[in-house]
Amino acid sequence: MAKTDSINVRVFSLNCWGICYLSKHRCQRYTMIGDMLCKEEHDIILLQEVWSEKDYLFLKKKLASSHLHSHYFKSGFFGSGLAIFSKHRIHDTFLYRYSLNGYPYMAHHGDWFGGKAVGMAILSIGSLIANVYVTHLHAEYCREKDSYLPHRVVQAWELQQFVRHTSVGADVVILGGDLNMHPQDLGSRLVRSYTGLQDAYLEAAKFDGCENGMTLIADNPFINKTELVPFEKGIRIDYILFKGSSKVDIYCDSMSTTKGSIPDHPFPYSDHEALTAHLRLESHNLTETRRHGQSGDEDHAAGKVAELVNIVTEARTEVKVGLHCAERMRYTATRTGMMGLALLLLELAIAAVPWLALGTEHPFPRTSFYLLAVLCFAILVTTLLLYVFYTMELKSLQGAEDQMRLAVGSLQEKLRAFPLFQAHNSERICPEGQDPSTLSPGE
Amino acid sequence: MAKTDSINVRVFSLNCWGICYLSKHRCQRYTMIGDMLCKEEHDIILLQEVWSEKDYLFLKKKLASSHLHSHYFKSGFFGSGLAIFSKHRIHDTFLYRYSLNGYPYMAHHGDWFGGKAVGMAILSIGSLIANVYVTHLHAEYCREKDSYLPHRVVQAWELQQFVRHTSVGADVVILGGDLNMHPQDLGSRLVRSYTGLQDAYLEAAKFDGCENGMTLIADNPFINKTELVPFEKGIRIDYILFKGSSKVDIYCDSMSTTKGSIPDHPFPYSDHEALTAHLRLESHNLTETRRHGQSGDEDHAAGKVAELVNIVTEARTEVKVGLHCAERMRYTATRTGMMGLALLLLELAIAAVPWLALGTEHPFPRTSFYLLAVLCFAILVTTLLLYVFYTMELKSLQGAEDQMRLAVGSLQEKLRAFPLFQAHNSERICPEGQDPSTLSPGE
Repeated sequence: MAKTDSINVRVFSLNCWGICYLSKHRCQRYTMIGDMLCKEEHDIILLQEVWSEKDYLFLKKKLASSHLHSHYFKSGFFGSGLAIFSKHRIHDTFLYRYSLNGYPYMAHHGDWFGGKAVGMAILSIGSLIANVYVTHLHAEYCREKDSYLPHRVVQAWELQQFVRHTSVGADVVILGGDLNMHPQDLGSRLVRSYTGLQDAYLEAAKFDGCENGMTLIADNPFINKTELVPFEKGIRIDYILFKGSSKVDIYCDSMSTTKGSIPDHPFPYSDHEALTAHLRLESHNLTETRRHGQSGDEDHAAGKVAELVNIVTEARTEVKVGLHCAERMRYTATRTGMMGLALLLLELAIAAVPWLALGTEHPFPRTSFYLLAVLCFAILVTTLLLYVFYTMELKSLQGAEDQMRLAVGSLQEKLRAFPLFQAHNSERICPEGQDPSTLSPGE
Repeated sequence: MAKTDSINVRVFSLNCWGICYLSKHRCQRYTMIGDMLCKEEHDIILLQEVWSEKDYLFLKKKLASSHLHSHYFKSGFFGSGLAIFSKHRIHDTFLYRYSLNGYPYMAHHGDWFGGKAVGMAILSIGSLIANVYVTHLHAEYCREKDSYLPHRVVQAWELQQFVRHTSVGADVVILGGDLNMHPQDLGSRLVRSYTGLQDAYLEAAKFDGCENGMTLIADNPFINKTELVPFEKGIRIDYILFKGSSKVDIYCDSMSTTKGSIPDHPFPYSDHEALTAHLRLESHNLTETRRHGQSGDEDHAAGKVAELVNIVTEARTEVKVGLHCAERMRYTATRTGMMGLALLLLELAIAAVPWLALGTEHPFPRTSFYLLAVLCFAILVTTLLLYVFYTMELKSLQGAEDQMRLAVGSLQEKLRAFPLFQAHNSERICPEGQDPSTLSPGE
């Protein structure tokens, strides 16, 4: 197994906070970001919250000489905000829009209008195929009472599905972005465990940046410190994740983050800190792949699968909470709509049958009558739209839960195929009359 | 290269026409379908338009002994209508919802509410991994003036992307469903050319069924013959497509369709004809894969890529037509909204400044005043919703067009790497200073 190549790849990720008219010093910050990216010449640049296409085109122009290849992912009302710039040729792109992404009527949160998604670009780095993903998950507005948690868990579920199923042929997999989840949050664990992606911050041989790799810090002047409570110093929600393949080993030689302020500049690049990872790809000229693990690894592999079963089960529970909540909201919408309909019918009855108006001395005032009818009609239309929306939310949650149930079953089946597990659980094997030894643990 | 295995796989596909309360004889037909499926024992059953989950559960119960494994894909308001039943274990599933799928206000067409999608199930057939896809694209209501064509082309684009990117690790790929496109339609060609999937009808050694493999025929009693004009006998819009891999060769030994009526039954299973393909998988124990084609195949491969460039370019043109149309519709919505706003402001001015009402002898009747205000408000809200919807449509169309442009560039680059093409086009090579010989034609 002779090492033939070592390629250094510098990956950059930043949530640019590029909300038109709302984000402070947007234009100056994009100029700063463009200047820095031009100078630093990272191989791969993954940006989030580039909400305006004009800002993307500004950066594209600025990076025209250093980064020949780029792609802007469009989705939703504002766009997905995701952009990728690369020194290496982008051969193909693909976008997966998350099925759940908040509520359109929560316009002040705006996530629904952003059309959150995960974008994929297939790059060739030398002779290697790299699948590069950039994503941005639904924001967490209140950690104590996070009504978006089921949506974010489903997004994490879909993210891992997308990465797992589309990266089979890749030699290198790199994922960067704002996951809006702490490292030990359910969704983070789900993505890392299921895809096998490693966290550059944890794997880095050297690290230079904020304490604990935080990317949303109290020292950043754009941050409202009260929103960080109880994490006074900050939180880590932006990541660069990576994995190699049977053909390539990947190492993180060093990692860095910005630290809230930028020397010689009045303000930082964004309200998030920027991440840079120096990855080293060690490729091999293999005639035989190492896809099928040595038998000595089996204990470890079985442990991983068992852990994954627990995480997916936990995610299922969270999705069920979301299901319960969506059902309640749909029920409320239905009940309100019914009340509106009843009132409208009552009004129509009053109009059609004059004696219902209880005497003619005090007839129902015509203006109030019409206004009430309009109100009833507005309630009916609004609740109908809400009913459609909540039903679609329910279908997505149910769909995710079904997929999770199936995945847990399949993982448990895989677990049964491990010899050690078999020895310990011989009585639980093959409930469906199938011989688990025929199942490949490497599926 | 020793042949070791030959596995027969029978694949069934049917659009079940299962619209609650609207589709004729729904319950009886599901009983018929269930009985037939129980008896026939196909390996893989791909169903579309199973709009009601109850119908899916009915079939699941009926097939409990013959088809242990199944999955129902949930999406949209009604659900995606997609279901899969299998004799072989389903390890994993994944659903991709098409980004464009008609318009919610075209409720009588109903496609938007169906949440059209492509569902994937990963099966193990013996020791082989089979990626099985089931899908249903937007219906074509009027071939002469098909306003949904850009949506369907984008769906076909996303379908090929999804299949191509998720099937890299599969030994066998099978796609079944109602594509709502004729064999030579742009979208059909796009899917087949880009994925390399082969049409079971065209590849079948034997065929027994309707003329030209038609699946929507005039002889079907549920079909309104006037809707088929100018294709008097019928059309072929349902398909079973397949491809093997470096590990497996796949052949279609025979194919059949139902022929409009079913012996001993008063009516057919559905308004569509059912498809059955007998596939034969010939697997090899290969140490070296055949992924890299022999140099003798290069002419053929270059021809294929050149054809693909033309098809993607054609698709781009169609998407541009859709973009133009969506822009016009958004403009109309904006203009109407502006008029509603102007009228509302005028009314408010009249209310605020009494002398505007042109004398007090004939004051603006109060009821008409309020009704007009309500009308203006309704116009404003409706046009606002439409504006949001059309902007999202535009983003999806633009996104697809961007991806197509990038794909064409990448394909042209690949084309330049073919030696023959190089010889003929030496002056056009390497506009970006890259050495095309380093690019792998098999990427």
